[in-house]
Amino acid sequence: MTDQDYMALALKEAQKAFQADETPVGAVLVDTLSGKIVAKAHNQTEHGQDVTAHAEILALRKGLKKLSQKRLWDCDLYVTLEPCAMCAAAISFARIRRVVFGAFDAKGGAVESHIRFFESPACHFRPNVKSGVNNLECGQILKDFFKTKRAKNS
Amino acid sequence: MTDQDYMALALKEAQKAFQADETPVGAVLVDTLSGKIVAKAHNQTEHGQDVTAHAEILALRKGLKKLSQKRLWDCDLYVTLEPCAMCAAAISFARIRRVVFGAFDAKGGAVESHIRFFESPACHFRPNVKSGVNNLECGQILKDFFKTKRAKNS
Repeated sequence: MTDQDYMALALKEAQKAFQADETPVGAVLVDTLSGKIVAKAHNQTEHGQDVTAHAEILALRKGLKKLSQKRLWDCDLYVTLEPCAMCAAAISFARIRRVVFGAFDAKGGAVESHIRFFESPACHFRPNVKSGVNNLECGQILKDFFKTKRAKNS
Repeated sequence: MTDQDYMALALKEAQKAFQADETPVGAVLVDTLSGKIVAKAHNQTEHGQDVTAHAEILALRKGLKKLSQKRLWDCDLYVTLEPCAMCAAAISFARIRRVVFGAFDAKGGAVESHIRFFESPACHFRPNVKSGVNNLECGQILKDFFKTKRAKNS
């Protein structure tokens, strides 16, 4: 499977979030040795009443538990939106090999848009990064979600 | 109770972490309207096999669950070590009123030592910050822990 294929699966997770009235961001964690999906997750901050329940955090926690490992050295993380500072730091702590993200987050992105966490002296493990994969689709679902939200609130 | 008193309780949590062979960092979450402790937690990254299980994240998640709230507007968080980028962002997402921390983290601190997350354009809610409360005790337990670790490994 290609990066685009895995991102399409992450986008399916984002669609689940949309249907659950959560900000539509999805993530999949892939074992690069086998190519298999280790964990899938979508944002659950609202219904979970847990501000830390971003797709990335949930995928990392599920993956660590499933593999019964303390780190995820051989795993790549695909996420539809550029990780925030919380998720970027968690990705580094988890020793993720490579992060592939879709849309850029001009508001809170901490990989390329702001902070550039992985390049900061506070970061002690730097994953490889590939950005902008399936950028348009990953961004469009967020635009659609917030448009629907605004229409409901107006 | 004073900031020093609450920090002393956070330090007790750090001592529990030490006894459990976890990096000794502790946190307490306080409801400033009542002065009552809402949640207490210590680092559980190793035994919990969860890189996100920093004391702050666990205290925030416990507090949100206990109060059945989506945000923690009226709460202050006391933590023995300067929050990292993951925890600083989570603190901001949770709308914590004030963060009080003990020791500075020259390696990964994201409040004053590096990044200064709360002042960055990626941060959209800035809590008040008080640093260096019971600094010496909060730092000493970490020094003792890593000294013990090094002795075991040598």
